[in-house]
Amino acid sequence: MTHHEKASELMTGPAPPRSGPPVVGMVGAGQLARMTCQAAVSLGIGFRVLAAASDESAALVCAGTQIGDHRSLDDLTAFSGRCDVITFDHEHVPGPHLRALERAGAAVRPGKDALRYAQDKRVMRERLAELGVACPRFAPARSLDDVTAFAADSGWPVVLKAVSGGYDGKGVWVCATPAQAAEVLAHGIDLIVEEHVAFQRELAVLVARSPSAQGAVYPVVQTIQRDGICREVLAPAPGLASATATAAQRLGLAIAAGVGVTGMLAVELFEMPQGLLVNELAMRPHNSGHWTIEGARTSQFEQHLRAVLDLPLGAPGLAAPQAVTVNVLGGDNPDLHSRLVHVMAADPGLRVHLYGKRVRPGRKVGHVTALGDDVDVLRDRAGRAASYLSRGTERDQPRVRG
Amino acid sequence: MTHHEKASELMTGPAPPRSGPPVVGMVGAGQLARMTCQAAVSLGIGFRVLAAASDESAALVCAGTQIGDHRSLDDLTAFSGRCDVITFDHEHVPGPHLRALERAGAAVRPGKDALRYAQDKRVMRERLAELGVACPRFAPARSLDDVTAFAADSGWPVVLKAVSGGYDGKGVWVCATPAQAAEVLAHGIDLIVEEHVAFQRELAVLVARSPSAQGAVYPVVQTIQRDGICREVLAPAPGLASATATAAQRLGLAIAAGVGVTGMLAVELFEMPQGLLVNELAMRPHNSGHWTIEGARTSQFEQHLRAVLDLPLGAPGLAAPQAVTVNVLGGDNPDLHSRLVHVMAADPGLRVHLYGKRVRPGRKVGHVTALGDDVDVLRDRAGRAASYLSRGTERDQPRVRG
Repeated sequence: MTHHEKASELMTGPAPPRSGPPVVGMVGAGQLARMTCQAAVSLGIGFRVLAAASDESAALVCAGTQIGDHRSLDDLTAFSGRCDVITFDHEHVPGPHLRALERAGAAVRPGKDALRYAQDKRVMRERLAELGVACPRFAPARSLDDVTAFAADSGWPVVLKAVSGGYDGKGVWVCATPAQAAEVLAHGIDLIVEEHVAFQRELAVLVARSPSAQGAVYPVVQTIQRDGICREVLAPAPGLASATATAAQRLGLAIAAGVGVTGMLAVELFEMPQGLLVNELAMRPHNSGHWTIEGARTSQFEQHLRAVLDLPLGAPGLAAPQAVTVNVLGGDNPDLHSRLVHVMAADPGLRVHLYGKRVRPGRKVGHVTALGDDVDVLRDRAGRAASYLSRGTERDQPRVRG
Repeated sequence: MTHHEKASELMTGPAPPRSGPPVVGMVGAGQLARMTCQAAVSLGIGFRVLAAASDESAALVCAGTQIGDHRSLDDLTAFSGRCDVITFDHEHVPGPHLRALERAGAAVRPGKDALRYAQDKRVMRERLAELGVACPRFAPARSLDDVTAFAADSGWPVVLKAVSGGYDGKGVWVCATPAQAAEVLAHGIDLIVEEHVAFQRELAVLVARSPSAQGAVYPVVQTIQRDGICREVLAPAPGLASATATAAQRLGLAIAAGVGVTGMLAVELFEMPQGLLVNELAMRPHNSGHWTIEGARTSQFEQHLRAVLDLPLGAPGLAAPQAVTVNVLGGDNPDLHSRLVHVMAADPGLRVHLYGKRVRPGRKVGHVTALGDDVDVLRDRAGRAASYLSRGTERDQPRVRG
């Protein structure tokens, strides 16, 4: 035993002996971990989160919360020692720590080799190119010269993206001029430049993949973004040609296998006149899949747990003809609960999910799902409720349904 | 301040100041509290349980678990001080304690006056008679003479029921002879004797009622019991005449108002050739409503939370044409998780709920819900899975679905 190993064991303490059902540990305690915790209750398994603070979204509801830093190998090692499988609410655990956990024998799912595709957009794009997957054209952007050279070919505007970090649209900048690009470059972060594609709409496909390589793919959805934030998800994507839907699902399964993911993979797509382009990948439950809680036979959160535990995957089919999910963004008034009462009174059939997060303007603090037949009616119902929860203005007050 | 109040305050400590969304506290930590805890996550409210031990079903998953004794007023007072509303997973909190909590200003829901109908079958039967609700004939049974005199009129067999206690069928004895009745009477508990009615089938209707007297009623279900334990719930009850369904729903709403319940009320019914008879009442989420988690727009667990918080009630309508729930009873082999894998592989569309309870033969340790169109197919699917989870025998192995 090396000195280092001994110190580590002393620091963390030996893991207690376990028997009975397995324990999944999720690093990070945001709303994704919160909803995964909720799904774990049904399976009779153990579930723990590594939270930065006790008032984080998942820490508020999880019986197995450990406070710690996802950037600390000691904290990760201690956490891992109390779980059978480690998985993630975000992509921010440093690669060397993931490698160290795997070397120490932890079941890290998705593993280091898969996660680097979610952590490094350049590596991801290169891997997708190897797999023959169509993406927007891109190039490294180390200087303004790189950007202007790229734009000479692709035209302006261009899209600058942070290679690492970036979550939910942050870390993406659309630049119409060299001056705007220079402003982003001035921050000194590692960037790529991408062509700004004229897509018809944005789609997403969710895939689950287990260590035994079982795959399950959900119906393709349409996502509607504003200011770089996902606002609405329409499941299934209205009027999508069945050949395109099948192509997107095949693409999702092929990418899941090609990057070796374990757990949920979200593939964000651009629908173009000539076919599909892959925009982004995420290796975790994803905002584009919150509709699955009520709208699919198996929610993405249960599916993620099944996949990382190498359990047989659940049926991903629709539980209703159409589901619409609208995100609730924080507004100026923090008292979500008082507004919830009016939303419940106005439309008793809506499914509201609040994340227990401190309200800050523009922050995702919940979502609303409506199920039914008519996508326009559902967008109206869920949209009014989400808007009223956000801002509570007269204009957005939910219409009372007869 | 009296000495007693001071001692109590010292013992419990002052309740911490609270802001933000309300906190519901549930006394008892069985599977009903566990599933209510799961529902609370979506509402963004606080949720706490008073558990007898840290390995109880709800205590395993609830971030706000307090260990204490539901028979101790000190424990109840301390618990109540950290919650905005108190509700119950069972009927066993002593009436005087409920009264003391109410006097101290706690919001106890359902309240003492309603709960005594669930705690004392004689008082409940008398109240139902006042309300003009048809029940099986009954009489107090203090001696064998009482029982034989009752049977001289009603005939044998008779049903003996414990006046208090009794949970999920325990506390009910069908006696075919005076000797069998004498055996029950020998235990010295307070009993009533009831006629043994020749019902066509058993039904149940679930109602929610809020302090603002808003009511919501679920579709009427059929329950199938074996050995006094609920085994299957068919929602809605197959082939039920619409007039009978409406009568049962009206009866449920009338009883909820008549007993002044707050929260969920389950009314167990006998369907007779000449109409409906009320068998039992329960004032909490109920085994006959587990199907609502996936099968209704609002689950009974969320509905209970809405009702006790005086929030507007959710839509109780069906989310699928037919739902079937089958209880999983413990067998000889405690390793439920290993069997879960095979159930998931055989039928990926089932919804399995495991309660995290120690397996003991005959104990309810989970349930399985199947949604679809054909009640026979759903009973077969859910029944095979529940049976395999219970016993893991070849004979009950789930059929692989193509």
